[in-house]
Order: sequence, then C-alpha cells, then structure tokens
Amino acid sequence: MFRHVVLFTWTEEATDEQKARVVAELGKLPGAIPEIRAYTLGADAGVNPGNHEFAVVADFDDVEDFLAYRDHPLHQAVIIEYIKPILASRAAVQFAFQA
Amino acid sequence: MFRHVVLFTWTEEATDEQKARVVAELGKLPGAIPEIRAYTLGADAGVNPGNHEFAVVADFDDVEDFLAYRDHPLHQAVIIEYIKPILASRAAVQFAFQA
Repeated sequence: MFRHVVLFTWTEEATDEQKARVVAELGKLPGAIPEIRAYTLGADAGVNPGNHEFAVVADFDDVEDFLAYRDHPLHQAVIIEYIKPILASRAAVQFAFQA
Repeated sequence: MFRHVVLFTWTEEATDEQKARVVAELGKLPGAIPEIRAYTLGADAGVNPGNHEFAVVADFDDVEDFLAYRDHPLHQAVIIEYIKPILASRAAVQFAFQA
C-alpha cells in the first residue's frame, strides 16, 4: 500500500466556516476518485502543543494511484478554491507500507 | 479511533545508519505497547518535492491510549536516544476518526 500524509496550519484570518468547508469538500473525494482505498482527515485534537492544525491520511494501492489522486481535477479544485486561500503552512510525506 | 501522525526532517549530518535505527527501534513498539492498534512508518518516497523525510502514523482506540503510547518509557527512550540526535524539524497532528 502507499500512504499519503499531509498536515496543514491555517492563517490567523481563516474562519471556522472556511475550515469546515475544507473538511466537507475533501470528504467528497473518496466518492469521486475510485483510486482512494482509505481516507481519514480531521482537525488536531489539541492534546499536544505546537501541532499543525489539520491532517489528511489517504491510502492507495500504489504510487500511480496516489498520483491519480494528487492530480485529479476535483482534488486540485479543492486545493485551489478552499485550501490555498487559508493555508499558512504544509508538511507532507508519502511512503509505502505493508497493509 | 484516534490517529497520531508525525512527520520529521533530519539534520544534514544524519547518517543512513542512524535513520535506519529509528525505523528499527520504532518498529519494536507495536510489540511492546499493547495500546497500539495499527502502526505504519516510512521514509518519504521522493515523489513530491518539498516533503518532510519520514512519517509515523499510529492508531489507538482513544486519546487515553494515545497518551499511554506518547508517554511510554520505551517510546520516550527511542525519541531521546535515536530521534532527537538527528532531528531537524517535526510536524504532528492527532485526530479522531471513524474506523
């Protein structure tokens, strides 16, 4: 399997409505992009200090399926319309793992 | 379920041996800390530029089980002995999700 992990922080100006919209729009992708095998996302629970604010973990059969997701027009539209306007910083890793 | 995600970058001086030791030592934790439900880790695949270098995704039944892992002496020993000496930066999020 191939796992995509991405963490975000939001701008100070980002509203709760904008953050909720990111969750809602990303949440539509598993129903629209068949290469996605598993998809979890959520706001940081506030347990540890210094964390990023939001995470997405997406699983695929292989790197090619990840690339199909990464470059999919619906995914790119969410990034451009809803994530980038409130994005402060981003950290990501993709790695292969044994399911 | 409760998911812990952490991404690392290593110092320029970090050796391949040191990085492999982190993998090996973390890999012992699922056998030693019963609260861990799932544990995946890996070096970045090099598909996207600008990524962090290494990821750990660990799943627990709830936040209390995550805290047991976070504070477990064996986990803390890996952090102190093997991660911190080569750590350049760290990004993390913990979030609840539906399994």
